[in-house]
Amino acid sequence: LASRREIASTTALLSVVLDRGIPEALGHQLYRRIRELILSGRLAATARLPSTRRLAEDLGVSRTVTLAAYDQLGIEGYIEARRGSGQYVRSLDRTEGSMARQTPPGRKTRAMPASSLHRDRPFDAVAPAWELFPNGAWARSLARGWRREGALAVSYDNWAGLASLRAAIADHLRALQGLNFTAAHVVITAGNTDALQLIAWALATPRAEVWVEDPGHMGARGALRRGGLEVTPVPVDSEGLDVAAGRRLAPGARFALVTPARQFPLGMPLSLPRRIALLDWANERGAVVIEDDYDSEIRFTGRPLASLASLDTGAAVLSIGSFSKLTFPGLRLGYIVGPERLVARLVRAREVAGTPVATTAQPALAEFISGGGFARHLRTLRQEITHRREALIAALRTQLRDEVMILPQEVGMHLTITLSDSVTARTSDEEIAALARTRGLNLEPLSSHPSTAPGPQGFLLGYAAWNLDRLVAGVEELARLLRC
Amino acid sequence: LASRREIASTTALLSVVLDRGIPEALGHQLYRRIRELILSGRLAATARLPSTRRLAEDLGVSRTVTLAAYDQLGIEGYIEARRGSGQYVRSLDRTEGSMARQTPPGRKTRAMPASSLHRDRPFDAVAPAWELFPNGAWARSLARGWRREGALAVSYDNWAGLASLRAAIADHLRALQGLNFTAAHVVITAGNTDALQLIAWALATPRAEVWVEDPGHMGARGALRRGGLEVTPVPVDSEGLDVAAGRRLAPGARFALVTPARQFPLGMPLSLPRRIALLDWANERGAVVIEDDYDSEIRFTGRPLASLASLDTGAAVLSIGSFSKLTFPGLRLGYIVGPERLVARLVRAREVAGTPVATTAQPALAEFISGGGFARHLRTLRQEITHRREALIAALRTQLRDEVMILPQEVGMHLTITLSDSVTARTSDEEIAALARTRGLNLEPLSSHPSTAPGPQGFLLGYAAWNLDRLVAGVEELARLLRC
Repeated sequence: LASRREIASTTALLSVVLDRGIPEALGHQLYRRIRELILSGRLAATARLPSTRRLAEDLGVSRTVTLAAYDQLGIEGYIEARRGSGQYVRSLDRTEGSMARQTPPGRKTRAMPASSLHRDRPFDAVAPAWELFPNGAWARSLARGWRREGALAVSYDNWAGLASLRAAIADHLRALQGLNFTAAHVVITAGNTDALQLIAWALATPRAEVWVEDPGHMGARGALRRGGLEVTPVPVDSEGLDVAAGRRLAPGARFALVTPARQFPLGMPLSLPRRIALLDWANERGAVVIEDDYDSEIRFTGRPLASLASLDTGAAVLSIGSFSKLTFPGLRLGYIVGPERLVARLVRAREVAGTPVATTAQPALAEFISGGGFARHLRTLRQEITHRREALIAALRTQLRDEVMILPQEVGMHLTITLSDSVTARTSDEEIAALARTRGLNLEPLSSHPSTAPGPQGFLLGYAAWNLDRLVAGVEELARLLRC
Repeated sequence: LASRREIASTTALLSVVLDRGIPEALGHQLYRRIRELILSGRLAATARLPSTRRLAEDLGVSRTVTLAAYDQLGIEGYIEARRGSGQYVRSLDRTEGSMARQTPPGRKTRAMPASSLHRDRPFDAVAPAWELFPNGAWARSLARGWRREGALAVSYDNWAGLASLRAAIADHLRALQGLNFTAAHVVITAGNTDALQLIAWALATPRAEVWVEDPGHMGARGALRRGGLEVTPVPVDSEGLDVAAGRRLAPGARFALVTPARQFPLGMPLSLPRRIALLDWANERGAVVIEDDYDSEIRFTGRPLASLASLDTGAAVLSIGSFSKLTFPGLRLGYIVGPERLVARLVRAREVAGTPVATTAQPALAEFISGGGFARHLRTLRQEITHRREALIAALRTQLRDEVMILPQEVGMHLTITLSDSVTARTSDEEIAALARTRGLNLEPLSSHPSTAPGPQGFLLGYAAWNLDRLVAGVEELARLLRC
């Protein structure tokens, strides 16, 4: 039975108009419209929101859209889940909504609001093992690197990134993946989001289509859209991206973004036949394949399949990568490697845009890599991460044998687990995640990743950032959540 | 008499369709469409393009749009100006246009293409005095800052920026402008573009309107648009932004962006009556005023008008600023200061977006400011910049007395000059700038700044990055250009 409050909130929400003609994702539009309704008071505090399924039907959008909007509103503290009874508008500080009302400067000095994403809580899948980062060695690299290259790093001519860092990255990739690249094949980025926006902006004609994996990475899709591309989700199966489906769904696409070493979020590698089919398509169409072998520096068993960039088929392949997860999130340095002609166009586009990647950390990272500090850190990281991973797997097997399945995966800093039917018959990964937030856990539900078809329910469990006790305690808490 | 080539190019260009329904600026759309035509060969090498005026008429857009497009194509080397006869398509390396064609990796190691923006040439208005930056002191600040705060800087909890840097900036602004702010009123940004996008994204409802100065800063307009705002140009007169015109043109606007200390690009300060009128409007409408007192650390004469943020009228004012021009362009650190409630919302939005500002340089800049290194550098900078400015003014007065007028301006790292009628009768600032590029000068024409009405012709002349000999030689070259 719908309460009066719920009817009022549903009426307010049905007034929402989403615009498919603008590049802003529908989920984000919906999030902003609901936030407006809350801030303006049209959605009252404690009002119950319709379910994501019902709202999706009413608005004529997919449930992904409503889930994305509710999730963001939840993260920002505008709404909250109550166990077994759905989502409610939280009561806000009354002055929050008025942009003009202010505390006069200097009278109060309240601290910043505490982080609401809780990246420091298990099992956040993005948090790196930052407490293992060797701060002393980094401080030395900072001073040494700047003394050596500061005069270069202060100048304007760093559109490609510092030559020393580009050379160090080429060496690193040669050792890691056997890629025969030099500094001229590398452009420095501020991370993967920056890399995707730059590629889209520099190489694409407006509204060109790009294949992305479905399910896949929301942030990557957003970056490609902001760069001006039309995103076409292409389903993945047990071998990874379904190239034949891509040819059917978007035959004229000029780009494809794939996670070949380990599909995000499901974890399987792209099979060799699919790799070849993808490169054949790219060759045939003159398309560019973008590969993101994230986490490939951390490998537990087996040998990696050769990266797409190393298969010398003549297809245009750009590999992107980031150092932030291997060091600390504020490093904000990554790279694109690929054919010189494409790299030169990326550099030129960066110059035209006029915003260089920050240079302060570049001489230091070059020095850290070429001086051996990074390799030492990677060894420590691999060892410690292996212990953490094993402890997490053992705890899951002991405590949640019947409730979860661990998907096979050979690399990485998170596990992908799925929920058994006995669990999903009672509840959903989204509901468990909402409840977990109130219990000190940060779970990333599989179904929060954009997907056109309903996929498996489960979680990405990060394990990089916590010691063994904290991981085991986290699994105990998760077990209580899954059983009650 | 139009040649056959020109007719062909005009026909190709008339096929261009611009879409006013998408947020991408029309100038950028046009640039991308023309680039497509060139890369696909539909606009042949050496084809002459129609004039910006004629193309604007044919496409039914303002000349600002065609000028912006041609300018970007020129910078990227797709087209070139030939003296007295307009713009031509340059002959490109034939494989440039094919994304798929590549040099096999590792076979060649050509250097990166040389910078085509020539920020190192007089009178680039963006180039800071980077060669004066004290690299030794900075290397020490890097190591010291990281030893002190590295453990904090590697964590995820830096959405507002490091507390030490926020406090140091609050102190700096108190000393500079008498602003009574503390760390809680400051959020760290990656510079002004980042600041404007964050403000738009975090505080605006989609399609909210923002007043911008006309003429004004193209990059700032782009950042506000990318953040989802509708940009309304409001004319400036001798007192700065015409607030009454803003009320007529966009009565429902929720934001205004102004450069009160020194209007960009014309140089006059916003008068006190206009400041009050602007704040009254903001108070009345619950709007947010964004002020960018760029260059205010460099002042030659007079006392500054009180910043908008320091006028305690209750209106919501956010001040933005950047350290990159006062240090080096790759620093990429700046700030937003304002009422705590707005700042808290900016921080939360940053957290939701999930991309922190790079942290490596933050402890170092905090240490550099609070340890006195930055104040020492500012003194050096002011002294040296004053000499450079005086040398430039003297040379202009000696050599170009009849051709240019220097607009009055009390602060900054560039001069604004206008061309006399005798010059503009024969040529335009755009044409002179195009020619100057072939003579080793980098001139920024006044008419390249977006403006709905035709404004004065002239240049922004940067003088920060060159020694006196180079500046004087630059004026001699400019004199030859203006006289021939």
